[in-house]
Amino acid sequence: MNMVDVILKKKEGGALSTEEIRAFARGAADGSVPDYQLAALLMAICFRGMDARETTDLTMEMMRSGSVVDLSSIDGVCVDKHSTGGVGDTTTLVLVPLAAACGAKVAKISGRGLGHTGGTLDKLESIPGCSVEESEEAFIRQVKEIGCAVIGQSRDLCPADKALYALRDVTGTVGCVPLIASSIVSKKLASGAGAIVLDVKTGSGALMRTLEESIALARAMVDIGAQAGRPILALVTGMDQPLGTHVGNALEVKEAIDILAGRAGGDLLTVSLELGGRMLVAAGLARDVADGKARMTAALESGAGLRKLAEMIAAQGGDARVCEDVSRLPQAKHLIDVPAPQSGYVSAMDTTAIGYIAQDMGAGRKRKTDVIDPAVGLVMRARLGERVEAGQPLCTLHLNDASQAEALAARMRSAVTIAKERAALPPLVYAAVSPEGVERA
Amino acid sequence: MNMVDVILKKKEGGALSTEEIRAFARGAADGSVPDYQLAALLMAICFRGMDARETTDLTMEMMRSGSVVDLSSIDGVCVDKHSTGGVGDTTTLVLVPLAAACGAKVAKISGRGLGHTGGTLDKLESIPGCSVEESEEAFIRQVKEIGCAVIGQSRDLCPADKALYALRDVTGTVGCVPLIASSIVSKKLASGAGAIVLDVKTGSGALMRTLEESIALARAMVDIGAQAGRPILALVTGMDQPLGTHVGNALEVKEAIDILAGRAGGDLLTVSLELGGRMLVAAGLARDVADGKARMTAALESGAGLRKLAEMIAAQGGDARVCEDVSRLPQAKHLIDVPAPQSGYVSAMDTTAIGYIAQDMGAGRKRKTDVIDPAVGLVMRARLGERVEAGQPLCTLHLNDASQAEALAARMRSAVTIAKERAALPPLVYAAVSPEGVERA
Repeated sequence: MNMVDVILKKKEGGALSTEEIRAFARGAADGSVPDYQLAALLMAICFRGMDARETTDLTMEMMRSGSVVDLSSIDGVCVDKHSTGGVGDTTTLVLVPLAAACGAKVAKISGRGLGHTGGTLDKLESIPGCSVEESEEAFIRQVKEIGCAVIGQSRDLCPADKALYALRDVTGTVGCVPLIASSIVSKKLASGAGAIVLDVKTGSGALMRTLEESIALARAMVDIGAQAGRPILALVTGMDQPLGTHVGNALEVKEAIDILAGRAGGDLLTVSLELGGRMLVAAGLARDVADGKARMTAALESGAGLRKLAEMIAAQGGDARVCEDVSRLPQAKHLIDVPAPQSGYVSAMDTTAIGYIAQDMGAGRKRKTDVIDPAVGLVMRARLGERVEAGQPLCTLHLNDASQAEALAARMRSAVTIAKERAALPPLVYAAVSPEGVERA
Repeated sequence: MNMVDVILKKKEGGALSTEEIRAFARGAADGSVPDYQLAALLMAICFRGMDARETTDLTMEMMRSGSVVDLSSIDGVCVDKHSTGGVGDTTTLVLVPLAAACGAKVAKISGRGLGHTGGTLDKLESIPGCSVEESEEAFIRQVKEIGCAVIGQSRDLCPADKALYALRDVTGTVGCVPLIASSIVSKKLASGAGAIVLDVKTGSGALMRTLEESIALARAMVDIGAQAGRPILALVTGMDQPLGTHVGNALEVKEAIDILAGRAGGDLLTVSLELGGRMLVAAGLARDVADGKARMTAALESGAGLRKLAEMIAAQGGDARVCEDVSRLPQAKHLIDVPAPQSGYVSAMDTTAIGYIAQDMGAGRKRKTDVIDPAVGLVMRARLGERVEAGQPLCTLHLNDASQAEALAARMRSAVTIAKERAALPPLVYAAVSPEGVERA
C-alpha cells in the first residue's frame, strides 16, 4: 500500500478503508511507516475527521496491535469505567467497590497521574502495603473471588496507540476527537472490558474545554461501542472545580473512605452514583439507570461498599484497617490554610492550575522518574457559588515542606476567582450519551 | 522555540511570525527540527494556507538557507523566466535569445526533465558539444558578453527547499499554493534573478489541473515579488495539449530553431512572445507588454534571435551550425506514424500521458541515473479542435528502438480523444497576473 495515497485520500476528505487504517496502525506499531508520514496523516485526520466506521477500525487495529487481556474465564460481563482525567476525581475508589458489592465484575487496569490529573494507581499505593502490580492470573482470580481488582498494566497493550500517542504529543495532533476516542477505547478493550462507562470531563480542569467538544468525544466513543458490539455509555460531567474536596493521593483515599462510610457526600458521590448506576446497566445487572443508582445507593447505605473496598485493599496486600481508621493513611506534617483575600462569591476556579499546584507539592510527577509524596495535597474549603468572607480559608494545604507554603498559597489565590455577584452554578452532569442519543441535563 | 506551539498555531489558523518561519526553514535545512514535526506543520499549512507575508518570509528564509548567486556585476536587471512545467514547452529556447537580442540580460539557471515534463538542460545537451556546466565566473562573463546563458545549478541553492520538497513528496503535501510558490520563487531568487516572469501552466498536462488553482499560484508568486521588492509578473497558460508540436529533446531544439528562423509558429511562439514581452517590461526595457511583444517580434523577424541562439550555443561549446542546418541535430532511426483510429474532431488530449510516453521512449528519466536519448520523441500532427480522418496521422513517433512502436502507438491513441462534434477550444492564455491584479483573457 502506498502511504502517500492514503494521506492524500484523507487530505481530500475521503474515508479510509479498513485495509488503509490497518496499514496505518500496524505501520505505527512496527515502524514500517515512517514517523513523518504518520504525522502528516494524523494532521490530515485532525482537519478531516474520521467517521464512526473509520474510528472503530482504528480502535480495533490498535487493540489488536499488542496483547489483549482475556477475561473470558470470569462469569458475567466485566465492566470498566474510564475518566478522561480530572482533579480531585477519585470516582474509581468509590464506584468500583459499590458496583462489585452489587454483583458487577470490575477487572480494572488503571493508570498513573498524568500532568495536572491524578491517577488511581498512585492513590492506591498511598495505602500502606497496597500493591498494584499483580500477575494476570492473580488479577483474574481476585476478580472471581471478590468481584473487583485495580492494577497497573503489565503487558504490552496497544503498542500502536503508544507510538501514535507519543507522536501526537510532539506534532500538535493531540486535540482531535476520533484520535482521542480510539486511543481511550482501544486501551479499554485491550484490557478486556466487555462493557464500558465513560466519564468525559468538561471545563477548566479537563482535556476538552468546551461542552460541544466533550459531547462530540462522548458520542465518538459510544459510537465505537455500537460499531464494535460492546456496550459503551458515557456521561459528560463538570470539571470546573475539583470534583471532590480532596486533591492528593492519600487525601483522595480518605475522601473515598469517608463517602463509603457515609460521613461525606457531595459532587464526588453524585457522579460516582451516576457512573456506577450505568455500569450496572451496561453489565446487565440493572433495568435502567434509576434502578442502577438505587442499587448503588443501597450498597452504600448498608456499608457493603466500604467492606468491599477493605476486601480489595487486603487482597492487594494493603492495610485494610485504613477503612476503619483513616489516620493510618500517610499524613502531611504541615496543614496550612489559604485565606480568601477578599469577601465575595467563589465564581470560577482554574482547575488545571489547582492540579498543577498539587503536582508541584509532590502529589504528582513532572518527570516519569519523580517520586510521589503520598501524604501531600490540598483540601478545598469552598466550592463554586459559595460565599466566602475575607480571611476565611479557601483551602488547606497539606505539606511536608513548609517552605513551599507561601508560593503555593499565592498560586491558589490566583486560581480561585472571588466576585461581588453570585454567578450561575455550572451543572455537574451536562449530558448522558448512549447509542440512543445525547440527553442533555 | 517550541515547534509544537508553532504547529498548533498554524493548525488553529494563525499566521506564523517571521521568527517562527525562520525556525521552521532553518530547522528543515539543518535537521534541527525533526521530519515528523515538519510534516505535521506542512500538512497544517496545506489546510490553513499562509498569507503573503508568511509566504514571502518562507521564500526569503529558504533562499538564504544556502548560496545566493551574485549577479550584481552585470549591468541592468537580470530577468528570468520560469515555467511550472509542461510538455512540448520549449519557450526558454525561443524567448531567451529573443529577449537577449532586445538587450535583456538573461542569466538563467535551469533544470532537467522531471516526471512527464521536459527540461531545458536536457534539450541544450542534445546539441552536439553544448555544455550546461560552467563555472559561475564563466556564466557571468557570458551574460556580460552576449546577454544570455542557460546552465545547470552548480552550488547548493536553497537546501531548506530541497529538504522540504523531498518531505512534501512523501507526505502528500506537494499540492499547496504557498508551498509551491515559495519553493519556485526561492530558487529563482537564489539563482540571482532581479525580475521574474512566470508561466503557470493549467490543464491536463500541468501540476495545477484547475484554472482557479493556477491563478491562485500565480497570484501567490506575484505577491511574493511585491512583498520582496522584486518585479514578478505571471501568465496562466494552457497545457491541455503539448504547447509546441515537438516533444523530445533534439526535436524541441529543432522546433525552437524553426520558429526563430521564421519557418514555424503556432502556440509555442505566441506564448513565447507573451512571456518575452513581459520579461522586457520587468527588465525595464519596454514601456508595456504591447511594446515588449513588438520588440520581441522585431528581433524574430530580423533574425537577431536566431543569431543570438547561435552565439549562446557557441559560447557554451556547442555546434552553432545546427541553427542553419537542423539535420546536424541527433536524428532517430525510425519515424512511425500513429494513424487516427476514427474520423472526427480532436476534442481532448491527456497531456500528462503524452509526456510519459515521451519519457518511456527515452526522452526523459524514470530514475535519476537513466541516460536520455536526445533523438527520440514525437511530433504531434493534429491539434485540439482539428478535424482528422481515420488513418490520417495523429502523431509521428521518432524512435531508435522500433520494437516499442506498437505499444507506444496504442498509448498515443488512448491519450487523444476524437469526438463526433467539434468542442470549444480552450484558451491559450487564460490570465495575466501582475501586482495590479488578475486580468482574465
